[in-house]
Amino acid sequence: MSRSSLFSAVTQIRPTAAGFFDVDVHPDWSVGGKPNGGYLLAMLGRAAAMSSERPHVTAASAHFLRAPDPGTAVVETEVLRHGRTVSQVRARLLQGGRPAVEALLVTGTLDESATPRWSGGVPDPEMAAFDICVRLPPSTPGGGAVPILSQVDVRVDPATLDFQCGRPTGHGEIRGWLRIPGEDRLDAAALLYAVDALPPATFDIEFTGWVPTVELTAYVRALPVPGPVRVLQRARLIDGDRVDEVSFVWDAAGRLVAQATQLAAIRFA
Amino acid sequence: MSRSSLFSAVTQIRPTAAGFFDVDVHPDWSVGGKPNGGYLLAMLGRAAAMSSERPHVTAASAHFLRAPDPGTAVVETEVLRHGRTVSQVRARLLQGGRPAVEALLVTGTLDESATPRWSGGVPDPEMAAFDICVRLPPSTPGGGAVPILSQVDVRVDPATLDFQCGRPTGHGEIRGWLRIPGEDRLDAAALLYAVDALPPATFDIEFTGWVPTVELTAYVRALPVPGPVRVLQRARLIDGDRVDEVSFVWDAAGRLVAQATQLAAIRFA
Repeated sequence: MSRSSLFSAVTQIRPTAAGFFDVDVHPDWSVGGKPNGGYLLAMLGRAAAMSSERPHVTAASAHFLRAPDPGTAVVETEVLRHGRTVSQVRARLLQGGRPAVEALLVTGTLDESATPRWSGGVPDPEMAAFDICVRLPPSTPGGGAVPILSQVDVRVDPATLDFQCGRPTGHGEIRGWLRIPGEDRLDAAALLYAVDALPPATFDIEFTGWVPTVELTAYVRALPVPGPVRVLQRARLIDGDRVDEVSFVWDAAGRLVAQATQLAAIRFA
Repeated sequence: MSRSSLFSAVTQIRPTAAGFFDVDVHPDWSVGGKPNGGYLLAMLGRAAAMSSERPHVTAASAHFLRAPDPGTAVVETEVLRHGRTVSQVRARLLQGGRPAVEALLVTGTLDESATPRWSGGVPDPEMAAFDICVRLPPSTPGGGAVPILSQVDVRVDPATLDFQCGRPTGHGEIRGWLRIPGEDRLDAAALLYAVDALPPATFDIEFTGWVPTVELTAYVRALPVPGPVRVLQRARLIDGDRVDEVSFVWDAAGRLVAQATQLAAIRFA
């Protein structure tokens, strides 16, 4: 295991052969004993970028098959198409020979000089300043252990903090800031974690046990400026035993840098 | 090639061995010579359901590698995990041995007796009645051929029809009804097509050439009641040469039955 639990260390990929990497699933980047899904996807993003020799992962669709245990694991990649400017890659994380996560990813080069041409469909939530937001403790409102919240600094806007006090508002929205120690400027792979860093927005509807992700699709749209990022997590529909949530990540300058949708399993008492 | 161009015929999968299917990509289910992405995904959905022996595809994340030509193709599937109630499947469509589309899918059983528990995050657009909406001709506003619009009945709400008259409003939204001849009640695989059936919502911002899908993720949430479905397509952000769009599909009774997000390439003159 890595000694350091900094993001750069816990997402490190060590090439062992073409398309094969050793990785360590760190015990502290977890929620109730299960590694965070976005954290695992960040490792697949790094592996996809390295395998395709592109600097940035720009899209990722991950299907979570089973939660790996903390400890060593293997990542395998296959470049499905290597185009002129982008590549498409399949990546999977396996432990003990069994697949835990499989993802399809797009890699390429995000143009640092580009500016958004149109953003009329992006939500524009008010967000309290970083210093006014409240840092979440490493615990759910129900007292469950969330060790990852000791690793990263998730600060929730007081306007959406009722869930943590045991009073969900029914709006299904949580927003706030994310700062990853050691990462002053999040890279593209770190944004794959950022989209999954906030508590489930369903906690603002009805508190349940953990809400395991079945599918997560993230698009990385730009590289953030230095500083913490703003994150909005919003539930859309709970039907049967499934909920879908969307998330948006803006950099400190207010530019949308990543967005995601996920489908998760939810059980009510 | 199939003689019939009905949806059930053009999405037919013919098993040839365990996990292998022959399919025909029909020339008329296309836009400017390229098969519609949702149409191809519907075939992968059928193959995933059959391979995993589950009645319904409930989620699909597809990466489009290259557009297949009309004609015969092969679908290959691999069940990645066969759980107690759901399965997770990889499926790919190949032509001449080269992969054209690769997708990860979830299959299971949609519970016909379930009702939504919470839908506070779902948009609720006003939608003009089917008979008031305007059937799109098999042509883009710029005169490009869209043969698929002779196969299906896409009717656009007059409130979002300006794009077709060459006057994009800048709202980035197109909504209307979809009726698939021969499919009085859309099944789960047909909903994978429905989420991609409307013209790109970017046509309501700025008319361009076709907007090829790079990635499409769809969730099927419920089985629709008989009748046409309502579809909303909305653009969110255009940045660099990429746009993301979301879509929502409601059945004739007003229940959200499917939703999707896609990332597409866009080129401006």
